[in-house]
Amino acid sequence: MTLTPLAPPMAATFAPPVMEARRWLEGVDFPPERPLINVSQAAPVAAPPEGLRRAIAEAALTQVEAHLYGPVLGLPELRAELASQWSAAYGGALRAEHVAITQGCNQAFAAAMATLAAPGDEVILPTPWYFNHKMWCDMASVKAVPLATGPDLLPDPEKARALITPRTRAIILITPNNPGGVEYPPALVQAFMDLARAHKIALILDETYRDFDSRDTRPHELFTDPDWGDTLIHLYSFSKAYRLTGHRVGAMVASEARLAQVEKFLDTVAICAGQLGQIGALWGMRNLGDWVAGERAEILSRRAAMIEGFARLGDWRLMGCGAYFAYVEHPFALSSPEAAKELVRQAGVLLLPGTMFMPETDPAGQRQFRIAFANIDRGGISMLMDRLSAVSL
Amino acid sequence: MTLTPLAPPMAATFAPPVMEARRWLEGVDFPPERPLINVSQAAPVAAPPEGLRRAIAEAALTQVEAHLYGPVLGLPELRAELASQWSAAYGGALRAEHVAITQGCNQAFAAAMATLAAPGDEVILPTPWYFNHKMWCDMASVKAVPLATGPDLLPDPEKARALITPRTRAIILITPNNPGGVEYPPALVQAFMDLARAHKIALILDETYRDFDSRDTRPHELFTDPDWGDTLIHLYSFSKAYRLTGHRVGAMVASEARLAQVEKFLDTVAICAGQLGQIGALWGMRNLGDWVAGERAEILSRRAAMIEGFARLGDWRLMGCGAYFAYVEHPFALSSPEAAKELVRQAGVLLLPGTMFMPETDPAGQRQFRIAFANIDRGGISMLMDRLSAVSL
Repeated sequence: MTLTPLAPPMAATFAPPVMEARRWLEGVDFPPERPLINVSQAAPVAAPPEGLRRAIAEAALTQVEAHLYGPVLGLPELRAELASQWSAAYGGALRAEHVAITQGCNQAFAAAMATLAAPGDEVILPTPWYFNHKMWCDMASVKAVPLATGPDLLPDPEKARALITPRTRAIILITPNNPGGVEYPPALVQAFMDLARAHKIALILDETYRDFDSRDTRPHELFTDPDWGDTLIHLYSFSKAYRLTGHRVGAMVASEARLAQVEKFLDTVAICAGQLGQIGALWGMRNLGDWVAGERAEILSRRAAMIEGFARLGDWRLMGCGAYFAYVEHPFALSSPEAAKELVRQAGVLLLPGTMFMPETDPAGQRQFRIAFANIDRGGISMLMDRLSAVSL
Repeated sequence: MTLTPLAPPMAATFAPPVMEARRWLEGVDFPPERPLINVSQAAPVAAPPEGLRRAIAEAALTQVEAHLYGPVLGLPELRAELASQWSAAYGGALRAEHVAITQGCNQAFAAAMATLAAPGDEVILPTPWYFNHKMWCDMASVKAVPLATGPDLLPDPEKARALITPRTRAIILITPNNPGGVEYPPALVQAFMDLARAHKIALILDETYRDFDSRDTRPHELFTDPDWGDTLIHLYSFSKAYRLTGHRVGAMVASEARLAQVEKFLDTVAICAGQLGQIGALWGMRNLGDWVAGERAEILSRRAAMIEGFARLGDWRLMGCGAYFAYVEHPFALSSPEAAKELVRQAGVLLLPGTMFMPETDPAGQRQFRIAFANIDRGGISMLMDRLSAVSL
C-alpha cells in the first residue's frame, strides 16, 4: 500500500537505527554455547536497586497524585533537587525554575529544538552524531549541518565557526559523547559556549552520560557564569544512572524564558512526564549517590578492559572510549553496514555501523562501529574481543 | 531577558490554556464554606482502582522489564488487547500491528500529524477545537483551518469540502467532542470519512472519550470497511477510562504503513511509552470492563444533572453536553475571558472561556464556556448551578 498523505520531511527521515539493527537478528541462531552479545544500544539490562523499586511501588499503592496529571514542567521537588545537585556539581546557582522534567532526554532535545529552530533553519551537529538528534532535525525540516571531527573525535570550534550562517540557531554537543565515547575538555566546551554566545545562537549541551565521566574534576565551568542562561541549554537523562529507561524521565536546564516556551511544547506532546518515573528519579537522586558512584566505578573498569582489549587487537583502532561507548575503526574489507550484519551471523555480536551516525556522503562511517560496552561485564568484554579477533570479513 | 534565538512558530503558539487558567487562582481566597469548584480540566481526581494500583506496584517490584526500554510501538500484549477489543466494539478486524502505544493521546496526535503534514500544509479543525491540536499545528508550521460549527456544534461535511485545498492533508474530528460534549452521529462520521477518502487526505478520529458515550450502539462503522487504513487514523487515551492521567498512555490505530512512519517520530520524541503505565492499561483493559461501565453510568448521571441544571438556569444555553464536557453560552455582559476570571473571584468556579477553543477573530468564543463537569459529583453540580445563577457579570 502506498501511504497517502505522507509528509516529505517524515518520508526523508531514516528508520530508527536500533530497531533496524534488531531486525538483523531475525532468522539467526545463537546457540547456548555462543549467546548473542548485544552492544547495539546504551541500555541498562538490570532493574534499578530494590529501594527505588519499592519507592515506586509504594507511591503507586498509596499516593493518589502518583496517578494524576502533574505540572507540565515536572514535580517541583525533583526540579529543586536537580537544581541543587547541579549547582553543587557545576559551581552554579541554579533554581528549580531553571529545570524542566521531560519524558526522557530525547524529548528534552526535541522540546529545546522546537523553541530554537523553524523550518529552513540550521543547527550544527558534530559527526559522528547521535541519530535521534539528526532524526528530529529531519522531521522538523531543520537542516543538520555536519561538523566532521578528526581522529580524536573532538569538534573544532574554528571549523564550527566557518559553518555558521544567518540561519544557524544552535550548536549541539554531547559529552561524554554518544557515539564517540570521548569526554570533551572543559576548555573545548567553553570555546563552543563563547562561539555560540558571540553569534547569539544556543549551545545545547547533552550530558546524558555525565555520571560515568572518568574525570574527578568539573567537566566544564559554564554554570559558573551567571549569564549562562542567555546561551546554554543543558540536557540530562535519569535513564542511565538510575536504570530508569522504561520510565522515560529526562531533564532540561535552561533560562526561565526558554522554559516558558518549552512548556508549550511539553504540554502539547506530553502534558507531563510520568509521575512514577519522576518519583523514582527523585528517590534515586536523594538516596543513590553512593550506588551511582559504584556503577561508575564498574563502568570505568569495563572501559579499562575495552582499552586493553583493543590494544591487543592490533588491526583495530579505538578512536574513543568512555561513558557507555567505544567508537572504533575496523580492519574488515567489508563496509561497516555489511560487516555489522556478518558479525551477527559469524560472531554473534550486534553493534551499530558508523554509517548510522553521519551523512551517507561521509565515507568515514564505512570503516567505523559503535560498541555500547557498558551493558556487558569484563567477562563479556573478553568474550567480545575473542570473537572480534577470530573474524575476518 | 529577551529570548534569542526563538523560533517564530513557537513564539506564535499560545501558552497552555489550563496552565494559564490556573494562574487566575493566584491571590484568590477560597474559604472552607465556599471551596473552589475546578471544572477547567478533564482530569480524574481519584486514583485508579486498587487492583490496577497493585498490578503496577507488583510489576515495579518483580518485573525487570517494567524498568527497561520496551518496543517503540508499545507492549505487544497491550497492542493485541486493544486490537481485539476495538475489533469487537467496532465490528472490525484489527490486528496488533495496527496499534501504536504512545505517551498519552496528545502525543498520538502529534505523531500522526508529523507523518501527514509538512510546514505550509493545512488541516481542517472544527471549532470549537481542542487547543492542544491547534498548538501542535502552530508549532509545526501547519495551518489549522477552522471549520465553524453551528448551534448544535456539529461540523458540516459540505462546509468542510469547501475548505479543502491542494495543501490540505487531514480533517480532525473528536467524538464525543472536546470541548463541545456532543456525540457525532454515525452518518456524520461516515460522511467525513467519505469526504477525506475522496480527496486522498486523512481522517483523524479522536475517541478519547469513547468509554463515556451515552449511546449503546456503535458510534460509527468505519472499521467495518476493510480499507479503513487508507484514510482513517484513530486515537485513544487510557487516561480517562482507567484514571491513568499521571502515567501518560495513549494509543493510535492506523495502517501498518502509517505506523512505520509513526515509529520514527515516537523513537525520536519518546523512545517508548512508560512501561508501568502500559502494564496498568493492559490490566485495566483485561479486568476493569464492569468498573468502567459503572464509571460511565456515573458520568451519564452527572450529565443528566447538568442538563437539568441548565434547563433551570433560563438565561444560559447548553449547546452540547456529553463525555466530560458541557459547552455553554453564558448570559453575562462581560466577554468570556473576563467573565471567567470574575467567576473565580465571585463564585469560586474555574472554567475555560470559549475564546481558548477558536481563533481570536471568531466572536462566538466571547459568549461561551467549557465546563469539565465529569470531575464533580451531583452535589458539586448542584452547587455549581447555584453559584452560576447567583452571579451577574
